[in-house]
Amino acid sequence: MNEVMKNLLTRRSVRAFRSDQVQKEDLEQILQAGLYAPSAMNRQTWQFTVVQGESSRQKLIEAMQKALNNPNYNFYQPPTLILVSNERTNSNAFADTGCTMENMFLAAHSLGLSTVWINQLKDTCDMPEVRKVLDEFGVPASHIVCATVALGYAKDPLPAPRERTGVIKYVR
Amino acid sequence: MNEVMKNLLTRRSVRAFRSDQVQKEDLEQILQAGLYAPSAMNRQTWQFTVVQGESSRQKLIEAMQKALNNPNYNFYQPPTLILVSNERTNSNAFADTGCTMENMFLAAHSLGLSTVWINQLKDTCDMPEVRKVLDEFGVPASHIVCATVALGYAKDPLPAPRERTGVIKYVR
Repeated sequence: MNEVMKNLLTRRSVRAFRSDQVQKEDLEQILQAGLYAPSAMNRQTWQFTVVQGESSRQKLIEAMQKALNNPNYNFYQPPTLILVSNERTNSNAFADTGCTMENMFLAAHSLGLSTVWINQLKDTCDMPEVRKVLDEFGVPASHIVCATVALGYAKDPLPAPRERTGVIKYVR
Repeated sequence: MNEVMKNLLTRRSVRAFRSDQVQKEDLEQILQAGLYAPSAMNRQTWQFTVVQGESSRQKLIEAMQKALNNPNYNFYQPPTLILVSNERTNSNAFADTGCTMENMFLAAHSLGLSTVWINQLKDTCDMPEVRKVLDEFGVPASHIVCATVALGYAKDPLPAPRERTGVIKYVR
């Protein structure tokens, strides 16, 4: 099995991170992988907003706690968040998001880093307390946050894969 | 740069395929990569319907030509199509589809095969002439076809990458 296949089959979602920050060179490779994902009609209308500073992350977390009415919400506390936003009028935004998220997940895994898909901002990004923070971060008003990468070093060894239950049918 | 990153950065969408069929072992690896993609809440509700027989492909092409009112429509004539369908009630279906499509694209590229995302079935899968064929192929009535992989050997050398125009912002 080639290195690419090994990486595809061993990547796992991780929800507990160490506090040490991601190396700049690794982050740049991960973002480059994201930029190289295909997009419908090659539109590439996505923006990647990298949130690393502790006070910035805390500001977003507090807005989310309010929006979700959950005082414990914390994105699983990774040292880095990558917000993937896209034009709200782009009907292929979520399909494009899946491609670019997966590219970043796989690049991160190949560099010894771990990730998980954060879905909550999709439903809260237009709530006033959250949008105020997104405005400060430079997320365009025309964008929704389709998904967020939680990125860092896994605290624990990667778990075994869950059972694969997807169905394959052959039409010869 | 590691092999995974090289594969991520050199994969291209291809729209002209040779007629020779994909090897069974390669197809199985590509489908396995698709099954190993993450899905929202690990639901894995996708189905992969592999269409390879010439008469079956032709039947689908003819239904699409009718549905699109385009007598030249042909999915770019790859030897293999992989229809990725998902529950129509799954609000994360397109995000999940992006992840699994990208896994299959990257696995294929690592094996010397080429791919492109086919978007047309998304809008036509519930039109009667197309649904009749999907029924025959075993695509569940509860599913929509979110996307299709066109898979085969590229006829021509892979093109250079298009300019990357996605925006990156850092919030320190």
